[in-house]
Amino acid sequence: MEQQTQPNPATNINPKATNNHNQPSSWAKKAWRLLSDVRAQSPLIQCITNFVSMDLMANTLLSAGASPAMLHSLEELNDFTPCCRALCINVGTLTPSWLPSMKAAAQLCSQLDTPWVLDPVAVSASGFRLKACMELVELKPAVIRGNGSEIIALSMAFTQPSKVSIVKGTDSIHESVDAVEAAKLLAKSSGAIVAVSGATDIVTDGNQVVGAHNGVALMQKITATGCSVTALIAAFVAVDKIHALDAAVSALAVFGVTGELGMKNAKGPASLRMHLIDALHGLDEAALESHVNITSLS
Amino acid sequence: MEQQTQPNPATNINPKATNNHNQPSSWAKKAWRLLSDVRAQSPLIQCITNFVSMDLMANTLLSAGASPAMLHSLEELNDFTPCCRALCINVGTLTPSWLPSMKAAAQLCSQLDTPWVLDPVAVSASGFRLKACMELVELKPAVIRGNGSEIIALSMAFTQPSKVSIVKGTDSIHESVDAVEAAKLLAKSSGAIVAVSGATDIVTDGNQVVGAHNGVALMQKITATGCSVTALIAAFVAVDKIHALDAAVSALAVFGVTGELGMKNAKGPASLRMHLIDALHGLDEAALESHVNITSLS
Amino acid sequence: MEQQTQPNPATNINPKATNNHNQPSSWAKKAWRLLSDVRAQSPLIQCITNFVSMDLMANTLLSAGASPAMLHSLEELNDFTPCCRALCINVGTLTPSWLPSMKAAAQLCSQLDTPWVLDPVAVSASGFRLKACMELVELKPAVIRGNGSEIIALSMAFTQPSKVSIVKGTDSIHESVDAVEAAKLLAKSSGAIVAVSGATDIVTDGNQVVGAHNGVALMQKITATGCSVTALIAAFVAVDKIHALDAAVSALAVFGVTGELGMKNAKGPASLRMHLIDALHGLDEAALESHVNITSLS
Repeated sequence: MEQQTQPNPATNINPKATNNHNQPSSWAKKAWRLLSDVRAQSPLIQCITNFVSMDLMANTLLSAGASPAMLHSLEELNDFTPCCRALCINVGTLTPSWLPSMKAAAQLCSQLDTPWVLDPVAVSASGFRLKACMELVELKPAVIRGNGSEIIALSMAFTQPSKVSIVKGTDSIHESVDAVEAAKLLAKSSGAIVAVSGATDIVTDGNQVVGAHNGVALMQKITATGCSVTALIAAFVAVDKIHALDAAVSALAVFGVTGELGMKNAKGPASLRMHLIDALHGLDEAALESHVNITSLS
Repeated sequence: MEQQTQPNPATNINPKATNNHNQPSSWAKKAWRLLSDVRAQSPLIQCITNFVSMDLMANTLLSAGASPAMLHSLEELNDFTPCCRALCINVGTLTPSWLPSMKAAAQLCSQLDTPWVLDPVAVSASGFRLKACMELVELKPAVIRGNGSEIIALSMAFTQPSKVSIVKGTDSIHESVDAVEAAKLLAKSSGAIVAVSGATDIVTDGNQVVGAHNGVALMQKITATGCSVTALIAAFVAVDKIHALDAAVSALAVFGVTGELGMKNAKGPASLRMHLIDALHGLDEAALESHVNITSLS
Repeated sequence: MEQQTQPNPATNINPKATNNHNQPSSWAKKAWRLLSDVRAQSPLIQCITNFVSMDLMANTLLSAGASPAMLHSLEELNDFTPCCRALCINVGTLTPSWLPSMKAAAQLCSQLDTPWVLDPVAVSASGFRLKACMELVELKPAVIRGNGSEIIALSMAFTQPSKVSIVKGTDSIHESVDAVEAAKLLAKSSGAIVAVSGATDIVTDGNQVVGAHNGVALMQKITATGCSVTALIAAFVAVDKIHALDAAVSALAVFGVTGELGMKNAKGPASLRMHLIDALHGLDEAALESHVNITSLS
């Protein structure tokens, strides 16, 4: 990792797990380096994800320069998963027939020290799903990314299980900033970096809290943008697995910036989706640097 | 529901199930109100649908202001389905492993008085599929929407079962207007509102027949437009379940209008798809009112 | 088939299986006739394919004028598959639960003399997948289309099984031109036409080798373009099954040309995807003829 040019002791709580770069230009440089590494290394990213997201997720990874592989068969994991640089697990259309593959792939990654990322979509939609997500968290994801409601529910499942209730839908009814404490608790209890998407994307390792302020509201009207940014986090973690917090923040910021760039030409959610992917493919350092907006919140 | 300003006794056959508005402006106002209610209430719509349609269906619902949830696991239905305002079931990529979920979710909705909508895609593609669709119809969908060939085959399965034959493909070989009598019979025997997509979309409760004349032919060259408008019907029914005929007519008209608006900038089916979704997101009252073309056909 | 106006004895090795047209204008005319036949006949193409590709594959077939049907249930094959003009099997998201359907559908097609096309996506990703693809090849596909790495691995599995190794990812690490000999061996041992996608698309029947030089590199940054061109081959073979080599070459060239035409307005992979599909729908004879670049390589 780069040397810190202007370290800020006040927020430098966990130097083992992360570097702190509270200078915007420093964050932009980091995000650019990680994106450049993804483009240069084209890491193979296995995705065991929901049916709705497969198309956009694969295209997001391709546009970022990574190499996506949507393989989920239990019979293939021993041969294939060890070839991957990271794994993305998303429970959006979970069934009992997919869960064993998710768990086996996650376990394999943990054994191989391959980072993997969990997207606990609609974690509180059912008891079955909540239990499945809790079991997956036990398998040591490097990063967990969800919206405010998902992170609050998942955090509570570990810390105050009696208070978890099954709630509606896949959309968040909480702002990301309302989930900061829940995210910190979840990070501490799971050992994972926890990212909360929202108007401000929050990322924490349980101590340090970083906010990525990029993105546009209309991205929420495109299905699978959340799923896709989780996969992008996996690609960024793949090229710098010992700095998972930095990778998560950078991926969230890059995706948000492409949303902002795409919005310039968008006339609605479908054209935004197209322009966003185009922007991700063509993103250059100057555009990234001029748009990245990351701050320390802790 | 709004009061009828100019009731037309001649077509006012079933006042219990529907309001009659033969004045175009009245239909436009109704469609606008329903769309506005979807946007304001963001009803949660569960979709148990085919793999091909998931992306466009979710984006259609999001662009209309609804909250889509593609959940199909039998293990989740008891927790999740009661939270939904409507359910959309589509048999496009049906297998025996999905059918129990479809039936359980439909049954749950019927018990809970939650409206659900059936899309019997390619109902006559196989004996297995025809039987599955007939079993689903027994579970009391609020609306059944298909193309002419699908509605004719499904109607015949209930009224003249010996004459049903397995036919090719998923495209209709019948005009919607050829399916009016079949649609009326199916509506009467099932208790559902029956909608037939085509150059003119036909909607009937078994007595009243309404035609929605919006849309462009090129929409048929985009996969899953039919599936998606069925989901849109579910969203409209969700906000006015006691007037399912009005909701179905309005959803078909709104989707058709967005096709017409999208067509202004389209250069082929893929750009039409994009502009259509953008148009659905941005649709305003003036554009809707100037384009809606709904007439009574009975 | 058309009469050859300028036969070239030197490459006219297998006149039973194919016509040779080494005049560019002759190939363009052939490609145009096949596309016109697809548009006129709208052949029903069954696709048993991976989840990622379903949307783009269906839209590719629709834009070409064919009628796609994504049905994969074992229970439906006996009723439905005989109605189809061709079948496309793609193992991208293979699991043990899908394999029996693939094999049964392929077997049915072989019995009915219905052409079917195999896309051995990531064939060497696992031993399970390699074995499945080998079993499928035994069921006599008319065409096998893969990238260089896939064709080399599959060919080697039949000719030098001890040398096959499990390799990473779904992207090719070989140029198509490196796979010519492997493709010829696979064609001879399987009886199938073998197509290798790449900067130059290679097609061979084991003796004759034809190169289709159309397409743009950015198409590789769009997920499922390879899957979709395999489906397009199926549609072309459907309308001229006794000339499967010509059909495969023509489909690859047509798809490549639409990529070139789409590229004129594209700003990245997502807009290229849209413009490509639009171009396929609107492709006229003059544009096709002025862009087609097919040569004999044997």
